[in-house]
Amino acid sequence: MMNFNMIRINMADLTVSPELLSEAYQGLGGRGLTSAVVSREVPPRCSPLGARNKLVFAPGLLGGTRCPNSGRISVGAKSPLTQTIKESNSGGQAGQYLARLGIGALVVEGLPEDDGALYLLHVDLEGARLIPADELRGYGNYDTAKWVREKYGDKIALVSIGPAGEHKMTSASVAFTDREFRPTRHAGRGGMGAVMGSKGLKAIVIDPSGSKKVPLVDADGFKRAATKFAKILAGHPVTGDAIPKYGTPYLINVINEAGALPTRNYREGNFEGAEKISGETLREIIKARKGILAHGCMTGCIIRCSAIYMDSEGAYLTKRPEYETLCLWGSNCGIDDPDAIARIDRACDDLGVDTIETGSAVAVAMEGNLIPFGDADGAERLMDEMRRLTPLGRILLSGAEASGKAFGVRRVPAVKGQAMAGYDPRALKGYGATYALSTMGADHTAGITLAPNLMGPVFGLESKGQAELSMNVQIKTAALLDTTGICLFANGPINQNPEALAAVVDMINAMHGLNYTPEDLDKMGRRILSMERDFNKRAGFTSVHDRLPDFFLHEPLPPHNTVFDVPDTDLDEVWKSQ
Amino acid sequence: MMNFNMIRINMADLTVSPELLSEAYQGLGGRGLTSAVVSREVPPRCSPLGARNKLVFAPGLLGGTRCPNSGRISVGAKSPLTQTIKESNSGGQAGQYLARLGIGALVVEGLPEDDGALYLLHVDLEGARLIPADELRGYGNYDTAKWVREKYGDKIALVSIGPAGEHKMTSASVAFTDREFRPTRHAGRGGMGAVMGSKGLKAIVIDPSGSKKVPLVDADGFKRAATKFAKILAGHPVTGDAIPKYGTPYLINVINEAGALPTRNYREGNFEGAEKISGETLREIIKARKGILAHGCMTGCIIRCSAIYMDSEGAYLTKRPEYETLCLWGSNCGIDDPDAIARIDRACDDLGVDTIETGSAVAVAMEGNLIPFGDADGAERLMDEMRRLTPLGRILLSGAEASGKAFGVRRVPAVKGQAMAGYDPRALKGYGATYALSTMGADHTAGITLAPNLMGPVFGLESKGQAELSMNVQIKTAALLDTTGICLFANGPINQNPEALAAVVDMINAMHGLNYTPEDLDKMGRRILSMERDFNKRAGFTSVHDRLPDFFLHEPLPPHNTVFDVPDTDLDEVWKSQ
Repeated sequence: MMNFNMIRINMADLTVSPELLSEAYQGLGGRGLTSAVVSREVPPRCSPLGARNKLVFAPGLLGGTRCPNSGRISVGAKSPLTQTIKESNSGGQAGQYLARLGIGALVVEGLPEDDGALYLLHVDLEGARLIPADELRGYGNYDTAKWVREKYGDKIALVSIGPAGEHKMTSASVAFTDREFRPTRHAGRGGMGAVMGSKGLKAIVIDPSGSKKVPLVDADGFKRAATKFAKILAGHPVTGDAIPKYGTPYLINVINEAGALPTRNYREGNFEGAEKISGETLREIIKARKGILAHGCMTGCIIRCSAIYMDSEGAYLTKRPEYETLCLWGSNCGIDDPDAIARIDRACDDLGVDTIETGSAVAVAMEGNLIPFGDADGAERLMDEMRRLTPLGRILLSGAEASGKAFGVRRVPAVKGQAMAGYDPRALKGYGATYALSTMGADHTAGITLAPNLMGPVFGLESKGQAELSMNVQIKTAALLDTTGICLFANGPINQNPEALAAVVDMINAMHGLNYTPEDLDKMGRRILSMERDFNKRAGFTSVHDRLPDFFLHEPLPPHNTVFDVPDTDLDEVWKSQ
Repeated sequence: MMNFNMIRINMADLTVSPELLSEAYQGLGGRGLTSAVVSREVPPRCSPLGARNKLVFAPGLLGGTRCPNSGRISVGAKSPLTQTIKESNSGGQAGQYLARLGIGALVVEGLPEDDGALYLLHVDLEGARLIPADELRGYGNYDTAKWVREKYGDKIALVSIGPAGEHKMTSASVAFTDREFRPTRHAGRGGMGAVMGSKGLKAIVIDPSGSKKVPLVDADGFKRAATKFAKILAGHPVTGDAIPKYGTPYLINVINEAGALPTRNYREGNFEGAEKISGETLREIIKARKGILAHGCMTGCIIRCSAIYMDSEGAYLTKRPEYETLCLWGSNCGIDDPDAIARIDRACDDLGVDTIETGSAVAVAMEGNLIPFGDADGAERLMDEMRRLTPLGRILLSGAEASGKAFGVRRVPAVKGQAMAGYDPRALKGYGATYALSTMGADHTAGITLAPNLMGPVFGLESKGQAELSMNVQIKTAALLDTTGICLFANGPINQNPEALAAVVDMINAMHGLNYTPEDLDKMGRRILSMERDFNKRAGFTSVHDRLPDFFLHEPLPPHNTVFDVPDTDLDEVWKSQ
């Protein structure tokens, strides 16, 4: 074992300080750890791009183990997009490698004295060091990966920002390489890339050479629980069938069927072009072009939601665009051209931006008559404006709310400054409750209510019970997924099957020699949410901010012609009872 | 007397409804009345550009009388810039004329069904009517005034928005014509022009023909008090000498001397080019070009702060730029060319935008390296981008905070989303307290602490007593100035001289047959502020928002090298004790 498991990186004096996780942080990983550090160490009113913000990277509690799909990495800071606390997590190799190096967290602090300087952080078994990296200025994530691979090989994980992060755009993501060293996995939400850019940190290279297996207190117990968990995932209709087959795009038809597919800036819940961008259609395209139909983004993935999307010449273009990308840049812009969306996806990955925030910004701009809905060529031109960081591009890169300001549009689908994802809250009201209640702004991943909203007991068109449902899911998500590093796709099994939940608890216990019960994990989830909410309160947020924009309350959504009518009292009650 | 004194204008069905001021609104005028209507009738969480916001115009309680300088008009709504309640007031003729027509308030409600339609509201003794005005689309305020003058003559007052308001830019102002029918007086702050634009209201023509003198219960008593008040104004060194001679630009040298002149985006408190843009220099320029040295913007003005600024050919260019314009577009951009600033002032008036918000936005963009500090030509080019409503122009028109986002700048001098005025809060800390505490965002006019900060007892560099000082001035300002319609320049006399205060109270009593004491007006001021603060609370604001951006707390300002260190507890205490 190394004698440190946290490394502080001070960008002001360019020093690195390995230390042991302090008591307050022990027993936490992933979001639990990033939120604990931000909550304790970052002044809630500080400027997110200033010296007092901190950027924290943390693998999950089960990171580096053979627990299936447990390699996610959390990125946390105060968000320049929402001004709230923020955690955004990603797949790719970084989480596994950091965990195998025994590192629980990297904490990036301060600002470089030379405002324009860029650095690369190199992390290995010896610790970490900062290396000047001005030559990477302006590099897209793909070129950065190429440069890094030439210098360091590809038996490493790369964490990087693109030009959007360098320019501190609030939609900027942090990119993570997958197993083929492609920067296609992103901590997309909340502008974590802008915080990394403000700190002059262009890239992190994580070299796991020489690292040993992650120590397990009870290796046999762990293996038993992991095997059980793997079986449950493989046997579940979503993680065992729909996702491996179609990836997240399986949702296009599902959500369209539910009348909740955001279409033309949340004006309709059905998109006439849904079939053309559906998971089924994409599968045919990938097959015809000899792409890869099932691909895991990280070691230990048994779901393999990803796929490789080729262009019409059969050359690699990008990973298969995710559901949210197909929705926010597709149906919500009235666009039904999967190739155009795939090219945009590639461009977003390269520039280093959230496809949800930028797609939503483009739809808002369409509503402001910048270009017509459905204009795929126009959307690609706007993507190009973003790549070139023109003034127009900068408006869009500043997100949906900023675009609403610039184009005088009042229908902006955002909560706490962050654009909603691909579920209209008037037809899937559990998502509406999550958008409203999440400590992170309109973040669907904070509490996915898909199964109960589609199949009961709390159907999506009902208003009753949604807030409570959302909060229950949020508690489980915070502890059992975001803190363990287990991929969000396990949310169905974990929420529906007590055995899946028990298996996760068993793995934590077997790994760390603990005696947690499911109730303890429930308590941990509540504690994480409370900590985050307390930060937000100190940053000036009140229950008044736990609301959707008022057009969702007044403008009925076709085809169901419902509005979001979960009562404010329900929304407030679930926090009060925490 | 007419049988109405409030007119509601419903833009959704294009009807007007005259009515009597309801009991809740009686005895109020100006800001007191606009804030009462917004507070009672506008849902605090509504979209400022949506159907549920209301735009209220109200002359002051003493409007239309011979009380000197009492013709200001208040414009109120929920602000799209700050999301708070907002009142912004202006000189010009509209306040006097509305008051003479017996109209206490115009309340503009709803949104037109045809999103793009434009209307002109015509108000006279008969009431009001809406007239389609699509032909005015895209007109600057000067061309609108020309068009209106040709159609309606110039014995009227015009209220209008320029293209910025039509496009709902959050820096858009509402323009008011002066006595020469020039649209040079503006309710500049908080985007009231955007609200007017969202309602499709391009212009209001107020025709006072046939109106009688405003009725006074005790005409002799009124005259006595008015004469006394006029004498006090004429005898005060600021209102009787400095302002009539140099206008507000007299402050350039004063504030520079105090080390508080915002320079290069609030990096310094002294500007090496101050002399070139000082009131003294401007006076010489105006003299040499045969401009007008002292000019009143409204009937009944005895201070005559205004002047007419000619171009180098001796032709009318604009009114003399105000101090805030010379500072925000001048020293704070490092610009010392008064002609460039005057051309920008003209362009801002024509486009219909706040010179503070746009000037601050340009300085933020300069900090983001868009153009260098001191580049006057570049600043004029940026002004041109705004006039042409290009994407770059739209960023700047969205204000300082939006520009900070677009250019990745963290040093944004704004509170509650609104840019600060021309007083650095680190050297004149009373202004800092006002910026922090005002219900309107960083609005210097809410509580001007100049005299006590310069001459004691609460000197500008001290931290103690500033919050209390600011709040006392804010209370007086809300009732005795903003609600009566008396020009802000009376703030010195009213704050320093109990006789001035008594004269104002006497005028109110003599006019309305009341028996108010100064204490009653103090209570009224507190009531107005509480009402506004309550609206903001319901809109989601807490004491956490009553703070300055953190760089003012950490970055010392040359030459005094002080930071803003008024304790949070002081800031919170003054509200608690209300």
